[in-house]
Amino acid sequence: MAESRKLRMGLTGGGPGAFIGPVHRIAAELDGRIELVAGAFSSSPERSKQAAASYRIDPARAYGSYTEMFAAEKEREDGIDFVVIATPNNTHLPIARAAIEAGIPVMSDKPATATYDEALELEKIVVAAGLPYGLTHTYAGYALVRDARAICASGELGNIRKVVIEYLQGWLSAPIEQTGQKQAGWRVDPALSGPGGCIGDIGTHAFHLVEYVTGLDITALQAKLRSVVPGRRVDDDCTALFKLNNSAEGVIVASQIAAGEGNGVRLRIYGENASIHWEQENPNILRIRRSSGPDETRHAGAAYLSGAARAVTRLPGGHPEGYLEAFAVLYREFADALEAWRADRAETLPDTLPGIRAGVRGMRFIERAIESNKTGQWVDF
Amino acid sequence: MAESRKLRMGLTGGGPGAFIGPVHRIAAELDGRIELVAGAFSSSPERSKQAAASYRIDPARAYGSYTEMFAAEKEREDGIDFVVIATPNNTHLPIARAAIEAGIPVMSDKPATATYDEALELEKIVVAAGLPYGLTHTYAGYALVRDARAICASGELGNIRKVVIEYLQGWLSAPIEQTGQKQAGWRVDPALSGPGGCIGDIGTHAFHLVEYVTGLDITALQAKLRSVVPGRRVDDDCTALFKLNNSAEGVIVASQIAAGEGNGVRLRIYGENASIHWEQENPNILRIRRSSGPDETRHAGAAYLSGAARAVTRLPGGHPEGYLEAFAVLYREFADALEAWRADRAETLPDTLPGIRAGVRGMRFIERAIESNKTGQWVDF
Amino acid sequence: MAESRKLRMGLTGGGPGAFIGPVHRIAAELDGRIELVAGAFSSSPERSKQAAASYRIDPARAYGSYTEMFAAEKEREDGIDFVVIATPNNTHLPIARAAIEAGIPVMSDKPATATYDEALELEKIVVAAGLPYGLTHTYAGYALVRDARAICASGELGNIRKVVIEYLQGWLSAPIEQTGQKQAGWRVDPALSGPGGCIGDIGTHAFHLVEYVTGLDITALQAKLRSVVPGRRVDDDCTALFKLNNSAEGVIVASQIAAGEGNGVRLRIYGENASIHWEQENPNILRIRRSSGPDETRHAGAAYLSGAARAVTRLPGGHPEGYLEAFAVLYREFADALEAWRADRAETLPDTLPGIRAGVRGMRFIERAIESNKTGQWVDF
Amino acid sequence: MAESRKLRMGLTGGGPGAFIGPVHRIAAELDGRIELVAGAFSSSPERSKQAAASYRIDPARAYGSYTEMFAAEKEREDGIDFVVIATPNNTHLPIARAAIEAGIPVMSDKPATATYDEALELEKIVVAAGLPYGLTHTYAGYALVRDARAICASGELGNIRKVVIEYLQGWLSAPIEQTGQKQAGWRVDPALSGPGGCIGDIGTHAFHLVEYVTGLDITALQAKLRSVVPGRRVDDDCTALFKLNNSAEGVIVASQIAAGEGNGVRLRIYGENASIHWEQENPNILRIRRSSGPDETRHAGAAYLSGAARAVTRLPGGHPEGYLEAFAVLYREFADALEAWRADRAETLPDTLPGIRAGVRGMRFIERAIESNKTGQWVDF
Repeated sequence: MAESRKLRMGLTGGGPGAFIGPVHRIAAELDGRIELVAGAFSSSPERSKQAAASYRIDPARAYGSYTEMFAAEKEREDGIDFVVIATPNNTHLPIARAAIEAGIPVMSDKPATATYDEALELEKIVVAAGLPYGLTHTYAGYALVRDARAICASGELGNIRKVVIEYLQGWLSAPIEQTGQKQAGWRVDPALSGPGGCIGDIGTHAFHLVEYVTGLDITALQAKLRSVVPGRRVDDDCTALFKLNNSAEGVIVASQIAAGEGNGVRLRIYGENASIHWEQENPNILRIRRSSGPDETRHAGAAYLSGAARAVTRLPGGHPEGYLEAFAVLYREFADALEAWRADRAETLPDTLPGIRAGVRGMRFIERAIESNKTGQWVDF
Repeated sequence: MAESRKLRMGLTGGGPGAFIGPVHRIAAELDGRIELVAGAFSSSPERSKQAAASYRIDPARAYGSYTEMFAAEKEREDGIDFVVIATPNNTHLPIARAAIEAGIPVMSDKPATATYDEALELEKIVVAAGLPYGLTHTYAGYALVRDARAICASGELGNIRKVVIEYLQGWLSAPIEQTGQKQAGWRVDPALSGPGGCIGDIGTHAFHLVEYVTGLDITALQAKLRSVVPGRRVDDDCTALFKLNNSAEGVIVASQIAAGEGNGVRLRIYGENASIHWEQENPNILRIRRSSGPDETRHAGAAYLSGAARAVTRLPGGHPEGYLEAFAVLYREFADALEAWRADRAETLPDTLPGIRAGVRGMRFIERAIESNKTGQWVDF
Repeated sequence: MAESRKLRMGLTGGGPGAFIGPVHRIAAELDGRIELVAGAFSSSPERSKQAAASYRIDPARAYGSYTEMFAAEKEREDGIDFVVIATPNNTHLPIARAAIEAGIPVMSDKPATATYDEALELEKIVVAAGLPYGLTHTYAGYALVRDARAICASGELGNIRKVVIEYLQGWLSAPIEQTGQKQAGWRVDPALSGPGGCIGDIGTHAFHLVEYVTGLDITALQAKLRSVVPGRRVDDDCTALFKLNNSAEGVIVASQIAAGEGNGVRLRIYGENASIHWEQENPNILRIRRSSGPDETRHAGAAYLSGAARAVTRLPGGHPEGYLEAFAVLYREFADALEAWRADRAETLPDTLPGIRAGVRGMRFIERAIESNKTGQWVDF
Repeated sequence: MAESRKLRMGLTGGGPGAFIGPVHRIAAELDGRIELVAGAFSSSPERSKQAAASYRIDPARAYGSYTEMFAAEKEREDGIDFVVIATPNNTHLPIARAAIEAGIPVMSDKPATATYDEALELEKIVVAAGLPYGLTHTYAGYALVRDARAICASGELGNIRKVVIEYLQGWLSAPIEQTGQKQAGWRVDPALSGPGGCIGDIGTHAFHLVEYVTGLDITALQAKLRSVVPGRRVDDDCTALFKLNNSAEGVIVASQIAAGEGNGVRLRIYGENASIHWEQENPNILRIRRSSGPDETRHAGAAYLSGAARAVTRLPGGHPEGYLEAFAVLYREFADALEAWRADRAETLPDTLPGIRAGVRGMRFIERAIESNKTGQWVDF
C-alpha cells in the first residue's frame, strides 16, 4: 500500500490570520506522508499568494477560488491528490461537491455542513462517488481516546450506564464578535456557521466523542440552549440530556461562556464495574476507576495500552504528544485510506477515522437539539 | 456569650454499626464546646447500653427511645442541652417535634424530614417554638466553601451565569441492599427514606450547595431520575437542569451508581469574568479561573482568604482539614447559637448554619424533581 | 483492655496564642478515649487560668508550672493519667524526667530533646522506668503512610533502591522572628530549640518518615545546611544525601525558606519494580507506579488497603481525613498502650507509635547532619 | 531575512529502529521552514536506503557515511543547507568537525561530545568557523520554560535562593542492555556514550535547564553517582548538590532506575518572594507560588504570558503542545539563525537556542560530577 512519494494536498482556507489552516498543514505533514502544494487560501488572490509565501510553496499554485484550484490542478501531472476544507461551515457543501465532482477526495473541517439538509445531500454525493471523505473530529485522534474506545469495546467496564461529557470554553464570555475578532466573527453569524452556535461548534465534538468512544448511538435528547451574551445571535451555552441505545443515559455540558475555561473537553463513562476519565487538556493520561480496587492511571506510550492506542503513538512514555499529533493521526489514517483507494479505487476508510456518517449524525444532533430546545421536550434522534 | 462549661448533647441513633453517629460525636466535641452525655442510640435498650460503653459515657444515660431520653433528661440538673437526630429520615419529624415540645433544641441530619409535607409541618413547629434548629449540610462547613460563598457575594466573578454541581458516588452500583448492608438498607427503602433515593440522599446536598454558595434561589427545574440497578425501589441516578433567580442556569449531576467514584462533590460557578472550582475530595484548595489572567489556587489556612473562611479554619496552611472538621464547624456555630439562645431565649442562628429554611427548600427540591421526572416537563419551584 | 472511663490528660504548654496546644487537645480527645483535665499551660499562672477557661476545664487544675501540676495531680483521686509535653525543645528533658519520676507516662512533641546528649539521658530514664513514652511524629499517623509502610514491608516494590523525601515550607522566608512572631521566635533561638533549626524542626520529621516507612536504617549521611535569611542564628535550609542499610541511597530536601510552599512533606520510594508516592497536603491518596503496568492510586477508606491502613481510618472513602486525624491516631495508639500498661504495668508500645528509640535516632540525625555540614564529609550514623 | 524556499536538511543517524531520528525529522519540518532531503541514516548503505524510503525522500540521497554525504551534497546545486547529528556521543565530534570543515552548519544531539576534552576541541572549531551550531536541549524549547526564564529574569521572584531539579526515569531499572534493547545498548557503553551514563544522558539536561532558566552559573558541585543495576558499566543514578554564582544552592536528582517514572523532568526555583514549578510531563502549565497571595497557574497560549513564551506558542490556550513542538522551537530558531548567516555570513545564534557554550558546560558538568564522586568532595566548576 505504501507509496514512495508524498501525497499532495490542496487547502481551501488558511489564509493570513487563520488559526486552523496552519494547523491542518502541520498535522497533515507531521508523519511525512503528505505535503501541502497548493491552496485557495483566500478569496483575495493577493492574500492567497501571500499565504503561499508563508507556507513556502510555489506561488503559482496559490488560487483565488476552489473552482480555479480544482481546474488548474487537474491539468497538472503533479496535481493535488486531495483537498482540505478549512473554511466557514456554509461553504463546506459547495466545496466538497465541487471536489468530488472533480474526482478529488476530501478532508473536511467539522461540522460537515451548515445544515442537516445539506449533510443529507452531501452524504448522497459522497456515497455515490465512493471516494475518501474524512472529517476532522480531532479529539478522536488522541491515543488515549483510542484506548478508552478499546476499553469500552472490551467490556471491561461492564454494561455502560452513564456518560458525562463536557466541552467548556470561556473565550466567548464577552461579545468579542463586535470587536472584529475573526475566529469569533463567523462562528456567531448564522449565515456562515448555520443555525447552531456553541451546539454546532463544540457540541458536535462532544456528541461525536460519546458515540465514538462508547460505540453506542444516541437515540433521544432533551436540550437547553441559551444565548447568554447580550446581542449574540446564536446559542453560546448548551446542556443536553441524552439516551443511548443500550439504555444508558448521559449529559452533554457545552459552553463558550464558561469564563476561565480554555478548551475543556472532559469525558467520563460509567459502567457497571468501573469508569473511565479523560481530559483533553492533559491528554496523555487516562484514568480507570473501579468499584473494587485502586484507580488506574494509564500513560500514553506505555506497552500495556491497547493496540489501538499504541498504533497512534509516536513517542515513548513521558514525552507528551498534544493536539497537533492527535490531528495528525487523522491525517495519517486518511493517507492510508487515500493510498488504498488510489491503488484499487475502492473506498476503505478505516473505522477509526470519522467520515460522512459521523458528519450526518453530527448535523442531525444540531438539528435535534435546536428542536428540543424550542419545544422543551425530549426528541427522538 | 461564652459559657464556662461544655454544652451537653444527647444523640438519637448512632448505635453499634452506625456510621454517622460517631461522626456526630467527633464533630460535636472537636472544638471543645460540647460533650456527648446521653443517647437513645438504639431501639434495643441493650444495644443502646453497648453504645454508651463504646462512647465511654454513663450507661445510666443510654435510653431505649427518644421519648424516654427526653423525659429522663428533663429531670436531671445536668440534663442535655440539645439533641442530635441521626436516624432514618422517616423519624426526623417525630423526634424533632418531641424534642421541641420538650424545649430541647435540635441539630438534625439532612434531609429535614421524609416528605415535603412533613417539612412544612416541622417548619411551623420550629418557627413557633423559636428555639435553635440546625441541619447538618456538612459541605457548608468547609472553609473553602465559605470562601467561595464570600467570593460570590463580593461580585468578583461578575454576574453568575452558569453553575455545574456534581455529586457522584459509586457505592450503590450493585444491589448491596439485598445483602444486608445497613447503610444501603434504609436509604433505598421508601418507607424509611421517603420517596427520593439518590435525589434525597445526596441530590439535596448538591441543591443546598448551589443556593448556599451562590446566594441565589433555584426557581425552576427539569429532572430525570432513574433506578439503574435492577430491583432498586428508589432512584439511584439523577440529572437536573435548573434556573436561578438571576437568569443563570445550571445542572445537577448526582449518582450513586457512578462506579469508581467515592464521594465526588464538585462545584463550579461561572460568572461573567471568572469561575470558581471546588472539589470535596481535595477540599483545602479553591481555584479561581479568570477570562484574563492566570488561574488562582487558594489554600486553606492562608491569610489572604476571606474572613468567612478564616473564621472556620483551625490549622495553618498546608495542614489539611477534612470532613470531620467541616462537620465540626456546623457544631461550633450551633454551639454559638445555642449559648446565645440560652442567654436571652431569642433564636439567633447565624446565616452560615443551615436551618429549617434550608430544610424546607431541600424537601421541596426532592418533591419538585420527582414531579418533573414524572411529567418530563420543567416545573416551577 | 478497654476501660470504661476516659484517660485523663495533663498538658504542658498550649497557653494563649499557642498553635500546637489546641492541636494536642483535639487530637487526644478525637477518638473519645482521652479528656484534657489539667495543664501547666503557661508559666504565668494568670495566663494558665485563662487557657483553662478557653479549654472549658476546671480552673483549679490550671497550674503555673509542671512541677506544681505533677505534685497536685498525684494527690487527686482523679489525677492525670499522663502528661503531654508541648513546650520548646529545651524543656522536653526536664519535664519528661520529672513526669517519669512522678510515675506519669509521657506523650512528647518532637524532637525528643534539644541535644543528642539529652536524648541519650532521656532514653536511659524511659527505659529504666518502663512506662509509656510516645513521640508525636504526626505524619506517621496518616492511614496512607501506614499503607506505604505495609507495602514496603510486603516486598511488593522489590528491593528498595532510592528514597526522595522533601519537607518544604516557606513561612520563614523573611526574618519574621524579628517581628515577634511567636512560633518563629523559639524555633530559631538555639537556646530554646537546640543547635538545629530547620534540620531539627522539620528535617527530623523527614528523617523519621524514611526509616518509619521503609523499615530501613540510615547508616551514613552527608548534609549541607545553610542560614539563608540574613541574621538568622540557625539553619533554615538543608539538603542531605544518605545511605540505608540495604545499600539504597536517598536525599532529604528540607527548607523553611522555600517561598510559596506550605507544609510540603512528599515521600517517594523507588524499588526494583515499582515506586510509591505520597504527599501530606493531599494525604488521602497514595500512588504506586510500576515498571510495567499502569499507575495505581489508592484511596483512604478503601477496602483494598492494607490492614494497617484500615485500622486507622475512621471514614468511608471520599470523606477526607486530615492532619488532626493523623495526630489522633498516635493518641489512640498511645491510649491503647497506656491502658495496657495500667492493666499490667508492662510497657507495650505498639511498633506503629514512635517512641524513645525514634526520639534518640532523630536527635542523632541532627547531630550527625551538623557534623557533616562542618566537615563537608560523609559521616557514619 | 525570510527565504522563499525551505532549508534543506541532512541527517546522520535515524535509521530503521531509531527513536530520535524521526523525532528530528518531525521537529525540523514542523514549522514549514525545513525539509529533510538527505541522510547518512545507517552505516549499512542498504539500511540507509531503506530509511530514505520510509522518509519518502530520494533514495539517491541516502548515504552510507557522513563523509560520503558531505562530499556528494556539496556537488549538488540543491545540496543540504545543514546537517543534524543524531548518532551516539562518540561520533559527535568527528561528524561535527567534518561538517564544519565542509562549511556545513550543524544541529547536534546533546551531549555535545563524548568527553570534556572533545568538547573543548569542538568549541575551538566552531568558534573559528563562525557558522551556526545548535544543540538540542529539547526542554529549553517549551513555551513555559521560556516563561519561567523570563520570570526569573524579571526579578519577580526576588533573589533566587534554592533550585530543585529532578530528572527521573525508570526505563533502565532492569539490565535491558543485556537483551539487545538498542536505545539502552549504546547509552550504557562507555565506548559509545562517554564516561557518564545517567549523568551524561539526562543529568546534562537537568544541569542545562538550571542555568538556562535561572540565568545563573553553577560554580561548584558535589555529586554522588551509582551503578545500581548489577553489571551496568556506567552510572544509572545520580544526586548532586550545587552552588550558583549568586550564592543560591540546589540539588539535581537524576535517575534511570526510578521504577515507575516516565520522563520526569521537574523544575522548582525558589526566590525570596515566590517560587516557580514546572513539570515536563504536563508541560503546558507553570505554577507560581507566593509567600503572600494565592498560587498562580499560567497556561500555554494565554495572552498574559511573557513575550518569550508567546513567541514560541503555536496554538490557542487549552490546545496542548508537547515534546515535538518544543523540539521544533529549537529548529525554528536554528532556521532563523541559519537564514541570517546565509544572508550575511555572520553567526547570530539567538540566546534562546543552546549552542556550543552550553555544550562545553554540559561536558564540564559530567567531568566535574565524576571527579566529585571519586573524591567525595565538593569540586569547583
